[in-house]
Amino acid sequence: MNLDYTDLRALYINCTLTKSPDPSHTQTLIDRSIAIMEAQGVAVDRIRAVDHDIAPGVWPDMRERGWPSDEWPALCDRVMAADILVLGTPIWLGEKSSVCTRVIERLYGNSSVLNEAGQYAYYGRVGGCLITGNEDGIKHCAMNILYSLQHLGYSVPPQADAGWIGEAGPGPSYGDDDGHGGRIGVDNDFTNRNTTFMTWNLLHTARMLKDRGGFPAHGNQRSEWDAGCRFDYPNPEHR
Amino acid sequence: MNLDYTDLRALYINCTLTKSPDPSHTQTLIDRSIAIMEAQGVAVDRIRAVDHDIAPGVWPDMRERGWPSDEWPALCDRVMAADILVLGTPIWLGEKSSVCTRVIERLYGNSSVLNEAGQYAYYGRVGGCLITGNEDGIKHCAMNILYSLQHLGYSVPPQADAGWIGEAGPGPSYGDDDGHGGRIGVDNDFTNRNTTFMTWNLLHTARMLKDRGGFPAHGNQRSEWDAGCRFDYPNPEHR
Amino acid sequence: MNLDYTDLRALYINCTLTKSPDPSHTQTLIDRSIAIMEAQGVAVDRIRAVDHDIAPGVWPDMRERGWPSDEWPALCDRVMAADILVLGTPIWLGEKSSVCTRVIERLYGNSSVLNEAGQYAYYGRVGGCLITGNEDGIKHCAMNILYSLQHLGYSVPPQADAGWIGEAGPGPSYGDDDGHGGRIGVDNDFTNRNTTFMTWNLLHTARMLKDRGGFPAHGNQRSEWDAGCRFDYPNPEHR
Amino acid sequence: MNLDYTDLRALYINCTLTKSPDPSHTQTLIDRSIAIMEAQGVAVDRIRAVDHDIAPGVWPDMRERGWPSDEWPALCDRVMAADILVLGTPIWLGEKSSVCTRVIERLYGNSSVLNEAGQYAYYGRVGGCLITGNEDGIKHCAMNILYSLQHLGYSVPPQADAGWIGEAGPGPSYGDDDGHGGRIGVDNDFTNRNTTFMTWNLLHTARMLKDRGGFPAHGNQRSEWDAGCRFDYPNPEHR
Repeated sequence: MNLDYTDLRALYINCTLTKSPDPSHTQTLIDRSIAIMEAQGVAVDRIRAVDHDIAPGVWPDMRERGWPSDEWPALCDRVMAADILVLGTPIWLGEKSSVCTRVIERLYGNSSVLNEAGQYAYYGRVGGCLITGNEDGIKHCAMNILYSLQHLGYSVPPQADAGWIGEAGPGPSYGDDDGHGGRIGVDNDFTNRNTTFMTWNLLHTARMLKDRGGFPAHGNQRSEWDAGCRFDYPNPEHR
Repeated sequence: MNLDYTDLRALYINCTLTKSPDPSHTQTLIDRSIAIMEAQGVAVDRIRAVDHDIAPGVWPDMRERGWPSDEWPALCDRVMAADILVLGTPIWLGEKSSVCTRVIERLYGNSSVLNEAGQYAYYGRVGGCLITGNEDGIKHCAMNILYSLQHLGYSVPPQADAGWIGEAGPGPSYGDDDGHGGRIGVDNDFTNRNTTFMTWNLLHTARMLKDRGGFPAHGNQRSEWDAGCRFDYPNPEHR
Repeated sequence: MNLDYTDLRALYINCTLTKSPDPSHTQTLIDRSIAIMEAQGVAVDRIRAVDHDIAPGVWPDMRERGWPSDEWPALCDRVMAADILVLGTPIWLGEKSSVCTRVIERLYGNSSVLNEAGQYAYYGRVGGCLITGNEDGIKHCAMNILYSLQHLGYSVPPQADAGWIGEAGPGPSYGDDDGHGGRIGVDNDFTNRNTTFMTWNLLHTARMLKDRGGFPAHGNQRSEWDAGCRFDYPNPEHR
Repeated sequence: MNLDYTDLRALYINCTLTKSPDPSHTQTLIDRSIAIMEAQGVAVDRIRAVDHDIAPGVWPDMRERGWPSDEWPALCDRVMAADILVLGTPIWLGEKSSVCTRVIERLYGNSSVLNEAGQYAYYGRVGGCLITGNEDGIKHCAMNILYSLQHLGYSVPPQADAGWIGEAGPGPSYGDDDGHGGRIGVDNDFTNRNTTFMTWNLLHTARMLKDRGGFPAHGNQRSEWDAGCRFDYPNPEHR
């Protein structure tokens, strides 16, 4: 077993609505996952999406569709350079942020790109998510984000989400001062454990795929399907 | 690369509301995925959940909680014997079936079981889903099912869902006679391609995990976490 | 303004997975809403769905579809007798219970019934929901339940859901002994306020609809639509 | 019964990702609902959100939070001037658009405002939604949008959503030329009927609330709750 992760690259996109340099609760949780990655020598890249001018749309470069500017193409290069992608989002009204939805739309806008094997270009990568809110919605947000990632071609390891929310109702957010010298949520064993397991499961799955030279290419190549290959899929006329 | 899949076992659970021997549209789609698996020599098991007396609850055996009967423990043995689990469900009012929800609840009821490595017992397995309806809801159902599976410990390969729905509004279901000598949906290229890709991606991921001797065990063992191991998770007091 | 509610009838369906006589946390919250209704003289009916033999399916009486027994037709009479319907559900793995999904399927199975005005039979009624869990999922469950109810013909008042969950991770449930002589969640101001507002908004909307003789009948009668009436809907040929 | 709707105001916010003057499929469906409104003399306002500079955040005016510009405060005035609010959105990857999520976040940012009765300021208004996509996701998007609206204080009439999608897989969008002299989807009886019923049910509910002078104020005033009124909510200490 290859236990060296130093050739892996991870990208964390924080989809907070709060722009720099204001503090982000979601970043506080992201940083804890990053600490594990960096302890293993993984090269970690970070994007705070709201700091960038990401145009609306589902095309690779919206400047070609009439938008005066669009930083997505440059951000997309960083997505494609990473073996591991983690989307972090706050919860507002039970839902992931509009910035997170925007990022997913733009990832989707590149989904027709194929790799050399004829697979969707995101194949061979792994994805996870980190969610924070003052109350309710981790699973609702996570199921949509993880679904989107696997739909694009990411592999999703076991327990690939983690998060923190407080008891029902308004209240402090993750990492806030608790008024007693501590910080809200940081001692939550469930959040800490899930964050740790998620991080390691991303590492393990990325390691396996990298050692394997990408996701195995048979039965899943768009180019070959379009050329008529059916990979044992039964012909309905013969049934 | 090991291209032999004959040592793998797959289980398809059809969560239709229709009991045997009445036909199930969902089974029609399931059968097409199974055909690929069997062409590769995979041992395929099938359960139509509604034919079984599965008690409500989130405990491994509800007979110990006052229910007079419960077939789940026997079904659970078949779940644990399978490397690959595919849940199939119809869509009613945009939602997966109550039978599917019941199956997920019972899978969840076994989620505290650990394997010899101290991981959750579902680790090392892979999951996918197949969805049919006459209109609307594949992704909504799939995101919940896939989320539940990864939460339990299943790995989710790229594009691990497939399905068929018709245009908005009531209409025929998958596999129905189209009145012109054909069958509804079976020529849908998108459904056929997704079903094929899902099936192969389940095979590939199961192959990798089986060759690896299960999902790598480090940083994700509940037993070790509970014993105090933290796997590089940063101590908040030191931050 | 008519402030007398004594002619109104409300039905609360508890969709807990726990059968009688075992205690239900969801019932604890339901009872608090019922207390307000009864203080206003509303006739309140209660169903604990898991205690009844409700067959799977989407037809009014599954005994006509091969099931040996089905208590839904009798339960449905109680649904139709009520001006107000509140579904209560626990959360398991972030989702409403299988019992709740079953109840919605069966409500849906009666959705083709029309009233004398030619509207769907559920028109003129109002709906809400109450959700409890030890962590995460109130809004996810509520959005599905309220969507289903409005789709069937129920009116949904403002803030028609309420619930309680604890901080992220396993923990005590609503109404559990807190070990200090109190009970978990019952002092949560947010839960109490939302439960109160929901209850009153159900009362107000039911009052308005009852005083009005049902939901106004124009532009929404299935029978007239099927007879060719278009109620000012523009003819696409003329556009 | 007051059958005059000429004193009502409706606002349709189109949350397409496509900016003016490019055509929007979602607008095509919105226009059909508007035609009914205008035939009844309702004053209809229209916003295409993507044409406006709406800053990220959950505060009423993000210019006070460091953003150089923010058109939301002006748009919000138009929201508050309307008795009826309809959100229209396309579907991308099964989800409502990022523009729609942004609009909901900003609506939420005004949710602490109270009216003279002490209710949330959105009380007394009614909401609905219109969804278009080439495949899958009407109900998933609608359940989130309608949930958000009722959470804010909007009343949701029966069948307050409508939409169009095509069969599973990529394909033409609503209103596209069908190559045979017609337009895709515009003859879909289900879409037409739902759009009509939604529109009329919004009119009826808005009429009732306007005639009633707003949503009845008792048991739902935040100001009174905060002052200690409990409106028959049972005191847990006495139970």
